Amino acid sequence: MYLVISVFRTPALIFTLQSPVVNNFLDPNEPTSSEARQSRMHFLDNQRKVDYVLVYHYRNRGAHPSHGSFSHPRAPLAVISNGEMGKEPNAAGQGNMMIEMGPLDALEEEKKEQREQFEYKLMEAGLELEKDLENKSQGSSFVRIHAPWQVLTREAEFLKIKVPTKKMYEIKSKGTIAKKFNDIVQKMTSPLQPRVPEHNDKMKNLSYPFSREKMYLYNIQDKDTFFDNATRSRIVLTIFIFPSFTGIHSLIAHNIYEAAYPLHDVGILLSLSFEKQCKLLYQEWACYGVFYKFQPIDLIRKYFGEKIGLYFAWLGLYTSFLIPSSVIGVIVFLYGCATIEDDIPSKEMCDENNGFTMCPLCDKSCDYWNLSTACGTARASHLFDNPATVFFSIFMALWATMFLENWKRLQMRLGYFWDLTGIEEEEVSYLEHSRPEYETRVREKMLKGQKNHVQKMETDKTESEDEDDDELTWKDRLPGYMMNFASILFMIALTFSIVFGVIVYRITVAAALSLNKSTRPNVRATVTATAVLINLVVILILDEIYGAVAKWLTKIEVPRTEESFEQRLILKAFLLKFVNAYSSIFYVAFFKGRFVGRPGSYVYVFDGYRMEECAPGGCLMELCLQLIPNLSTHLFPTSLLKTASSESKHPEQWDLDYSLEPYTGLTPEYMEMIIQFGFVSLFVASFPLAPLFALLNNVIEVRLDAKKFVTELRRPDAVRTKDIGIWFDILSGIGKFSVISNAFVIAVTSDFIPRLVYQYSYSHNGTLHGFINHTLSYFNVSQMKEGTQPENSHFGQEVLFCRFKDYREPPWAPNQYEFSKQYWSILSARLAFVIIFQNLVMFLSVLVDWMIPDIPKDISDQIQKEKSLLMDFFLKEEHEKVKLIDSAQRSPKSLTPSFRHFSRQSSRHSSQSQRGSQRGSHASSASQHTIV
Amino acid sequence: MYLVISVFRTPALIFTLQSPVVNNFLDPNEPTSSEARQSRMHFLDNQRKVDYVLVYHYRNRGAHPSHGSFSHPRAPLAVISNGEMGKEPNAAGQGNMMIEMGPLDALEEEKKEQREQFEYKLMEAGLELEKDLENKSQGSSFVRIHAPWQVLTREAEFLKIKVPTKKMYEIKSKGTIAKKFNDIVQKMTSPLQPRVPEHNDKMKNLSYPFSREKMYLYNIQDKDTFFDNATRSRIVLTIFIFPSFTGIHSLIAHNIYEAAYPLHDVGILLSLSFEKQCKLLYQEWACYGVFYKFQPIDLIRKYFGEKIGLYFAWLGLYTSFLIPSSVIGVIVFLYGCATIEDDIPSKEMCDENNGFTMCPLCDKSCDYWNLSTACGTARASHLFDNPATVFFSIFMALWATMFLENWKRLQMRLGYFWDLTGIEEEEVSYLEHSRPEYETRVREKMLKGQKNHVQKMETDKTESEDEDDDELTWKDRLPGYMMNFASILFMIALTFSIVFGVIVYRITVAAALSLNKSTRPNVRATVTATAVLINLVVILILDEIYGAVAKWLTKIEVPRTEESFEQRLILKAFLLKFVNAYSSIFYVAFFKGRFVGRPGSYVYVFDGYRMEECAPGGCLMELCLQLIPNLSTHLFPTSLLKTASSESKHPEQWDLDYSLEPYTGLTPEYMEMIIQFGFVSLFVASFPLAPLFALLNNVIEVRLDAKKFVTELRRPDAVRTKDIGIWFDILSGIGKFSVISNAFVIAVTSDFIPRLVYQYSYSHNGTLHGFINHTLSYFNVSQMKEGTQPENSHFGQEVLFCRFKDYREPPWAPNQYEFSKQYWSILSARLAFVIIFQNLVMFLSVLVDWMIPDIPKDISDQIQKEKSLLMDFFLKEEHEKVKLIDSAQRSPKSLTPSFRHFSRQSSRHSSQSQRGSQRGSHASSASQHTIV
Repeated sequence: MYLVISVFRTPALIFTLQSPVVNNFLDPNEPTSSEARQSRMHFLDNQRKVDYVLVYHYRNRGAHPSHGSFSHPRAPLAVISNGEMGKEPNAAGQGNMMIEMGPLDALEEEKKEQREQFEYKLMEAGLELEKDLENKSQGSSFVRIHAPWQVLTREAEFLKIKVPTKKMYEIKSKGTIAKKFNDIVQKMTSPLQPRVPEHNDKMKNLSYPFSREKMYLYNIQDKDTFFDNATRSRIVLTIFIFPSFTGIHSLIAHNIYEAAYPLHDVGILLSLSFEKQCKLLYQEWACYGVFYKFQPIDLIRKYFGEKIGLYFAWLGLYTSFLIPSSVIGVIVFLYGCATIEDDIPSKEMCDENNGFTMCPLCDKSCDYWNLSTACGTARASHLFDNPATVFFSIFMALWATMFLENWKRLQMRLGYFWDLTGIEEEEVSYLEHSRPEYETRVREKMLKGQKNHVQKMETDKTESEDEDDDELTWKDRLPGYMMNFASILFMIALTFSIVFGVIVYRITVAAALSLNKSTRPNVRATVTATAVLINLVVILILDEIYGAVAKWLTKIEVPRTEESFEQRLILKAFLLKFVNAYSSIFYVAFFKGRFVGRPGSYVYVFDGYRMEECAPGGCLMELCLQLIPNLSTHLFPTSLLKTASSESKHPEQWDLDYSLEPYTGLTPEYMEMIIQFGFVSLFVASFPLAPLFALLNNVIEVRLDAKKFVTELRRPDAVRTKDIGIWFDILSGIGKFSVISNAFVIAVTSDFIPRLVYQYSYSHNGTLHGFINHTLSYFNVSQMKEGTQPENSHFGQEVLFCRFKDYREPPWAPNQYEFSKQYWSILSARLAFVIIFQNLVMFLSVLVDWMIPDIPKDISDQIQKEKSLLMDFFLKEEHEKVKLIDSAQRSPKSLTPSFRHFSRQSSRHSSQSQRGSQRGSHASSASQHTIV
Repeated sequence: MYLVISVFRTPALIFTLQSPVVNNFLDPNEPTSSEARQSRMHFLDNQRKVDYVLVYHYRNRGAHPSHGSFSHPRAPLAVISNGEMGKEPNAAGQGNMMIEMGPLDALEEEKKEQREQFEYKLMEAGLELEKDLENKSQGSSFVRIHAPWQVLTREAEFLKIKVPTKKMYEIKSKGTIAKKFNDIVQKMTSPLQPRVPEHNDKMKNLSYPFSREKMYLYNIQDKDTFFDNATRSRIVLTIFIFPSFTGIHSLIAHNIYEAAYPLHDVGILLSLSFEKQCKLLYQEWACYGVFYKFQPIDLIRKYFGEKIGLYFAWLGLYTSFLIPSSVIGVIVFLYGCATIEDDIPSKEMCDENNGFTMCPLCDKSCDYWNLSTACGTARASHLFDNPATVFFSIFMALWATMFLENWKRLQMRLGYFWDLTGIEEEEVSYLEHSRPEYETRVREKMLKGQKNHVQKMETDKTESEDEDDDELTWKDRLPGYMMNFASILFMIALTFSIVFGVIVYRITVAAALSLNKSTRPNVRATVTATAVLINLVVILILDEIYGAVAKWLTKIEVPRTEESFEQRLILKAFLLKFVNAYSSIFYVAFFKGRFVGRPGSYVYVFDGYRMEECAPGGCLMELCLQLIPNLSTHLFPTSLLKTASSESKHPEQWDLDYSLEPYTGLTPEYMEMIIQFGFVSLFVASFPLAPLFALLNNVIEVRLDAKKFVTELRRPDAVRTKDIGIWFDILSGIGKFSVISNAFVIAVTSDFIPRLVYQYSYSHNGTLHGFINHTLSYFNVSQMKEGTQPENSHFGQEVLFCRFKDYREPPWAPNQYEFSKQYWSILSARLAFVIIFQNLVMFLSVLVDWMIPDIPKDISDQIQKEKSLLMDFFLKEEHEKVKLIDSAQRSPKSLTPSFRHFSRQSSRHSSQSQRGSQRGSHASSASQHTIV
């Protein structure tokens, strides 16, 4: 049972609109495709489209359902009698009703009143409402909202929504070569294109902000479909957050409504109406079978709005940019595999004849050992630690810049085709409105301020007025900021201490295991595996915690607008999650094994435990080992963890949608991808396969996200936005940081520089022969500290000097064990490399940034052309107007044209060439005098 | 004698506008201040303002002045009879005139025809023209243009020019503390404020794009002054460059007109009319007496348009930012002076007891010398080479960031107050129109293409059409680009070779002078002074040449639009001038003295001449010496070189203005300042007084530029622009580059790092005692190459070892003269410093950039507020419109308000609270239920 609320007879503003509304919707000339109208997306009259749905929970305490509602069909009217749709609403009647319904809960009553107030205002603003009868003792009730043509046009004019005009124009693809190339590309990629209705790529409607005074400009065929569903719901949402209203977000926050959402169009899956977008979206987008295809971005945008459209466009671009980097990454890896046999240092390490006797890896229980036993890791490390990696990381730094530049261009292109150019200045978005929490705080403050003021006035009458009460100043915010600052510091410290804890775990467990002879061979493997596991679990747990903490901290800050709330939350969450995800990796990359000391003077933690060293293959190998599991936690598409639960068979679309999960923003999706982007770019020097893994993940991720949006979430509000906002800044920040981080990985973590220096400065024949010997210093075992010598040495031979990996003076030099000249020269080379690499790559990035214009050439041409077309279009209207006046006013004597010589130059503009042609032969002869 | 051309009787479009135009200008109700109208800025009727002036040169060959013009007052009419302002214009009459005028030069005739064509089009577009009689055999003739109200409103609507509406609102300065602080600042700076008419800072009109349909919105008191002069001339200019026109720039390029400019308002210096801007500008801005005051930026913008306003705002901000940096620079310098006595290294150098015997500075003719003789330069170099410099250069790097950030904010603030928000998208600026040179090239190409096409068609009928003919592709541009690339490379090579030439000059002349005993003591001073002078002259000459070359190269490129022409020109000119100005400095800073070799193995150029070394005081001293003269060439305000020549006593404003220099753009002004900015920021580590010098220069520069604009140049077209364009990118590029350059100056050029390393690693007692000894290596004089020993050594004592400044192994070490361990460790420290400094400063810059929002808080609040006010304003209009319809339509039964419970919440919006209050007591009781 439904009850149509209309305010046609209310004496306020809206009633005068009555007749046109009705005419509009009952217009028999309208093309009514009755199948479509039979769907569950309309009011009971099957005419008016549901543009938005509000849901609230009601309780009819004390009122018997059988009596209050069912048997007395007019009773529910009373509930909404304030809405004035009853035929006989008067004060006396209402009094009766109140008694009939019994004593309602006070809170419930107040909520109801606020709902009614809100709904009244909606009706006053011209919206039309349909409401379910509250025929149970309690339950969810739906308020369905329809925006009639008047409201749509009014708001579209206020919002300056750009709509297509009648004027079409051709989008010329300039240049025959470019055109041919385009055609070839199009043919080749056609199997990859989603099968969506052919969008005419060659023609575009000239768009112009909607104005009711210029109605004749627009191509209005069907008033029902002129504004698409996303725009309609956006307009309704705009009314919801109208300045003089208590915004809908505040009402939901205060539990007066439970939910507010526009309707999905999934319901018309089988219909053949104009709205088969969603079916298409499902088949051509949210489906694993089409993983190889491009996404139907225009359709996504049309259905979900620009914000979500941009996310998927971004994700698509990112994924496709991963393809070349994966390919090159694989090539680099294969190069490492292919050259593994030619690598002299690893051959030297594996050569048992060299017989480098290494100093023991731990005190007492460890024995001297032969370097050739570490042959395996040495060979493995060559896979990632070879010259190709350097070029790959330069490539990836430029790749990141290219990606960002191309994103800017794609964003511009989409902005042009989606008519977003020039929106930001005009539109009042709900994101700019004060958040309910903020308003509450301000109100609290004002109350307090008034109290204080009154007190002050009593004590000191001369005090001037304090005008700060209507907003929060830094003084009010200071506790929040302090709390934020302290908490974030604490969280970061927590992360660091967990990393340190894992280190301590590794050191102590390794030491403990080394005591036991049977476990000794597998010590390193066991310890590394368990430590990585512990680390992983901790990271996953902390990640969840930090997400919650960031939200809580942002709430404490009480930002004024939804927009700044989102931004602050993102920044905080990103900072915490970034530190959490990367700190252990940074430790391995830049700190592990650097504070070990030297034989005879080791650095000890918690006295007795030596600091851990990298494996003999080098720290790069360890970095890679650390990276893979961390990366994989961010690769497993998290959406898989969620299960769809929307299989209820309720017939109404609003019920169906209500059973879905509410949409909570794109932040988690972006965050996941950004952290992944970090893995791909920050340490790419140590793990060239990262882009490949990311690519494989993202191919699935796109479809998973798509499925989620199409089938698991309520339809999000269509939000217009030009760009991806703060995410772009974060991405470009990561891009910049990755340059430095890769420079250090190559210079400090890998053996690239020492090899280079050895080859060109120390080697006798310009090869790497003797490199391993060069990197190992000598230690006189007799100088070992008392009690740290190996107990029960089983090493085959007498040991006088053992070797360790460092550049130090030998025991026989005057300044024994000091850093040698080699150490300093290699350090200089490393640092010089960092400077050169960083500045070179930064310079190249700037160059790439500068070479690739932010606005694609064809788009800027089109925008230019559109401007002048628009001007022409208007001028034509203008001239016609003037002509009309002219023909009405002109005096007979001026009727005969008395000019002869003047005409305009041959003009491309139809309006003028028309008139020009009327001037006959003289015109054409005069035009020969035009400037050439 | 004047002739008023009006097209009122022409049968075309404009005539219908006749009566309103006349009414408007003869309206007796209009407030006519007759004094103002007597000025020389109006048509003969003293009513119509001259908005623009076209000047052309005519020759009446064969026509006797006494006959053709003076005695026959109707004759000149014939010249413009096509304009249709004569009473009896017909073909026959014109034929007569032609004969009467005699045989005109064919070219002259054609030009005249084109002028007439152009003027006809202007009239057709609604403009009104007044023209001098061509009463001499040849001379300059003026066409004065007036834009009537119809044209102004039409174009203002097309251009979406924002104009003030009736609605005023208060700009609230938020926060009592901020307010008080503001008041104090305002009081303190009030003597520094220019005395211009009080702009009401507290109130601002709500602006809205002009629309003729919404005329009631605007506060139109006087149609003559509603659009200010700058806007009026801008509108006329817009018509000039209308798509279907051959633009005025093309006509001037083809010499059809000589000049086109709006009029200065200087003429009304003594009048008391509303337009005393210019007098004010002269007194309060373009005058040395007010050098200490702020500039009246709003007035400048009103008079000259936004582009020039922004330049002066930028210059003002830059100058005021130089104040703190000058102060700190002076402090740093004074710190150097104060600590000169405590500087241990220079004391050690000056101590003759140390007796460091230095190796000879040149072969043969130079003797051994004692380091203490270089005491003077050592002491001087301490002035600039002390730890305070490091902090100063960090400060200056952040200063540059702060400056740019503050400029962004100021730009936003000005944009808000000047109603520039949201203009870029809408306005078709003349900068976006094709340049005449481009069009000519395209036309040439099309002609050629057609020919080819015809030929092709003849030979091969199947060939499809080539559509590339209407624009230049990269193929057409390739020769230009190649030429550009080659020329720029050549120019840069030229600059480098001149720098090298100066080096060779120094080396050879020094060697030659050293041979002569009498000149020997002053060799260094003489050579340095002459070299600097030569360098200076060459730089000044090349600067001029490069300016011309850049222009020529840009012309070769044939950029399509004026905008891209300007951008390309600026980039090229900047690149060439930058290299020219800085290459000698870069040489001294980073290369001089680094390729000297060592005693016994010097590096020779042109065999026999040793590479030059830095003076014993260090390269920083030399850098400073190089910097001062270079800086001074850019400090001497170039405008001083130009003399004003506008003292003619001609009575008419257009004649006066015609005698002034044409305005040619802001590029030279900006370029000068940007190169100066480079001096201030790039090498600030070596010369902390640079900001002070720049400040002193700029205080004069501002007034000089102002004088130039007010008295020496024709009034520039008012160009609307939101920002300073490419200059900002160049500035921020210099800012970034300065971080790296300063890092290297401190690390490599100065002795800061070696001292630090010595103090903390080598010194026995943690002081710098022994530092000089540490920096000097030993050389065994017996190993000197044959023939390079000093001839006739007069050095007092026997020399076994001489010293030289380098870190090398002593002669007694096994690997003698190799770089020592100290060398490598100090190099490592230097490089590490560069990395840390660069990344730290870059990080701080990003932080500063991020912490300071680009849009000032109060401005973003105001913009926000303006948006919602505008929406309210419209809604009010809307409601009133609906009410009117309502009251006309409503039926009697709905007249009595049947609602009782609903009302709106207490609202700030007047339109709603008015109605709200009518609802009486029920309303107020209901409002207690509102959500709190």
